[in-house]
Amino acid sequence: MPLLPLVGSATQVPLLDGTTTTYANLDVAASAPALQSVAARVAEVLPWYASVHRGAGYLSQVSTALYEQSRQQIGAYVSARDDDVTVITRNTTDAVNLLAGCVPGRVLVLDIEHHANLLPWRRVASGVSVVEGRDSLAGAVAVLADELARDSYALVAITGASNVTGETLPVGEIVTLAHAHGARVFVDGAQLLAHRRFSLAATGADYVAFSGHKLYAPYGAGALVGRRDWLDVGTPYLAGGGAVDDVEVGETTWQPAPARHEGGSPNVVGAAALAAACAALDAVDPVELDRHEAALRGRLVAGLTALDGVDVIRLWPAEAEPEAIGRAVEELAEPVGVVTFTVRGIEPGRVAAYLSAEHGLGVRDGRFCAQPLLKRLGLSAGAVRASIGVGTSVADVDRLIAGVRSLLAGDVTGDYVLEAGVWTLAEDPRPIVGPAGLSRLADTAGSCGAAV
Amino acid sequence: MPLLPLVGSATQVPLLDGTTTTYANLDVAASAPALQSVAARVAEVLPWYASVHRGAGYLSQVSTALYEQSRQQIGAYVSARDDDVTVITRNTTDAVNLLAGCVPGRVLVLDIEHHANLLPWRRVASGVSVVEGRDSLAGAVAVLADELARDSYALVAITGASNVTGETLPVGEIVTLAHAHGARVFVDGAQLLAHRRFSLAATGADYVAFSGHKLYAPYGAGALVGRRDWLDVGTPYLAGGGAVDDVEVGETTWQPAPARHEGGSPNVVGAAALAAACAALDAVDPVELDRHEAALRGRLVAGLTALDGVDVIRLWPAEAEPEAIGRAVEELAEPVGVVTFTVRGIEPGRVAAYLSAEHGLGVRDGRFCAQPLLKRLGLSAGAVRASIGVGTSVADVDRLIAGVRSLLAGDVTGDYVLEAGVWTLAEDPRPIVGPAGLSRLADTAGSCGAAV
Repeated sequence: MPLLPLVGSATQVPLLDGTTTTYANLDVAASAPALQSVAARVAEVLPWYASVHRGAGYLSQVSTALYEQSRQQIGAYVSARDDDVTVITRNTTDAVNLLAGCVPGRVLVLDIEHHANLLPWRRVASGVSVVEGRDSLAGAVAVLADELARDSYALVAITGASNVTGETLPVGEIVTLAHAHGARVFVDGAQLLAHRRFSLAATGADYVAFSGHKLYAPYGAGALVGRRDWLDVGTPYLAGGGAVDDVEVGETTWQPAPARHEGGSPNVVGAAALAAACAALDAVDPVELDRHEAALRGRLVAGLTALDGVDVIRLWPAEAEPEAIGRAVEELAEPVGVVTFTVRGIEPGRVAAYLSAEHGLGVRDGRFCAQPLLKRLGLSAGAVRASIGVGTSVADVDRLIAGVRSLLAGDVTGDYVLEAGVWTLAEDPRPIVGPAGLSRLADTAGSCGAAV
Repeated sequence: MPLLPLVGSATQVPLLDGTTTTYANLDVAASAPALQSVAARVAEVLPWYASVHRGAGYLSQVSTALYEQSRQQIGAYVSARDDDVTVITRNTTDAVNLLAGCVPGRVLVLDIEHHANLLPWRRVASGVSVVEGRDSLAGAVAVLADELARDSYALVAITGASNVTGETLPVGEIVTLAHAHGARVFVDGAQLLAHRRFSLAATGADYVAFSGHKLYAPYGAGALVGRRDWLDVGTPYLAGGGAVDDVEVGETTWQPAPARHEGGSPNVVGAAALAAACAALDAVDPVELDRHEAALRGRLVAGLTALDGVDVIRLWPAEAEPEAIGRAVEELAEPVGVVTFTVRGIEPGRVAAYLSAEHGLGVRDGRFCAQPLLKRLGLSAGAVRASIGVGTSVADVDRLIAGVRSLLAGDVTGDYVLEAGVWTLAEDPRPIVGPAGLSRLADTAGSCGAAV
């Protein structure tokens, strides 16, 4: 039933009742396990790993070729145009910070963005405007249109798919709008690309960024792909060796992109892993991928909605009822496999702790690094998020629905308490299993603000 | 004979004469292959990999614990003090750029530094002074002393060991000097830590940075370890999720370190790999490590020096003859296993291309991302660098000496030509071997400037 096999999909975890169960990872929207093919590729390239750039040895030539071919494959996965450039970054956050140093004017964003596509833009010298997305997608696009007509922008930065609700934005439509006003478009593809194909060439978008850890290649590499001109002359991102062409004690000549932004030794293994993930996802029929996600997401939303006491969150509730806004169903993109919900009267952190300890489910609670959006949705106390990927099965989805049903029915054994902002078991009898050497489990009080 | 087994140490590479040989990797100073124990650790943790921070699932708790324990182990490897903080970075270049955003005053560096410990400091608002290191180590320390007496500095940034000659700096002596003038000391440990143990607590140094790819853990993670206060309040390095405590549309409350500087999802696998490398190196008797390196380096220097036409480079030539400067041999630290040399009348790139194609040796040529230093040494045309690590054997060293001897004897088969700044075979009959999918070998014309 999973589309592609993941490393660790059979991992057993302990439950509160003393038994064990196969872990159901429904938090892939945050970080996804490695594809088995990605781990195999890493094992294959490792004996060939050596220094890249300026090493004359045969293995340095192999490693450099591997790195540059990986770069090419990563760019090709998002249909980079011939004159686009692919910079290997650490992750999407890193990519956005990099681009923020290169934008030659103001940036426009909607308030639905998560922090990675919000905070870095505040560093842009010319400034950033954050506009309210209102209650419908059409309204949000209209807000962008109004603002583009009102003021001059160099860049519109949008998410490809919300990391909170999975709802997607009409990239092509926004590109047309932005370009008409002389602005470029950056697409935060971190969430979108793990679920759907994306094409720079087809959408006309100018830049896209994404992360290996969401794309089943958690080896520390991501990418920024797009127009070369700004990247060739913008502020060098990582000052250091590799980024420069010539250095005197007093002055420096910087390389053009991508070397300009890749100071220090590159993450060759991470780039090869990301390229392997792109290749594996590229080999999946897009129709089959969409069908897999739509079926599982539909099943999850239907199952949760049928439970009295559960509310599934939408950015734009009206979009869930196309006829109410006078549009055909096929005009509206289905959200990707990310579902956020609340259980009335039960704190999100308590819900998540219960689902973990008593059902072996991994979900996320909190504000998903998107605090302004959660506040606007009236969810400053957070919510619970379940996410679906290529490794998710119907059984995983059904276990989640059954778990929430049990919670609502009061079938709760553990004593859950709030300690230092984290819901946890008052006494946790579960043994510590995992890689050797772990002396304890971690509380998972996140940055991005605790849920309460 | 190698102290620790590396992945790929048996990798076979093709030679110009149609035979194959075991690759001798003498470019570990640039990037080192993974320790077998590191690769095994990565394979062990991968099935437990999940989202970290705010994930309530059991595997998220495991991954978060793994990440935080790795952070603790990495800090412990450099004997971090109780109140020091360990930030997981991408590499040393990344770490120096991060610290440069946090230094509350001027920075002082010697002109012997490589770019990673030179260029980022130019971003410090208060500025950086680069002083000439003169012809002896004692002279260089005196220059630092004079400058510290003359002007006010927040930080002295020094290399632990030169990436060009392997010569080490007297960290403790410089710390005493700097602290007496109210300045802190940052040690670029990228090269030093791959060869020797280093202790923040014992040297009194305030910060140290190092890279996984030089420490036999090439999985995209490095570290910055040191005093908490500047890091707690300095410019957040990677704006984004995880780095913030609370976000309103108009304002942001940043986390203290390390979260403040680790925006986006962290490289858990990279951190675990780096921690595993620290554990493996920690388990080697430091005396045995020093003996291994000193024996191999001594053998290499003696062998090269005995060849008429080879010059071995020193930053401070006088240091090679302690009695000439009135100091006892034991007062002077041996260089670490990095040896740079030139072959009179033969371009460094040609030497390196020949050693690769006809002897299966991997060395580096060029200016080693340290152009100002190479210029001061009269080596603007570059040099050849061989480096020794825990995986190096006597046979590797002897093959290099024999290769250079053959070159000097005119035992050259290939037709080496300079193309686009890179010395290469006019016709390269060697087959392409390596991981699947490589369509070509790469030329290795590096950034940092070609050698000519």
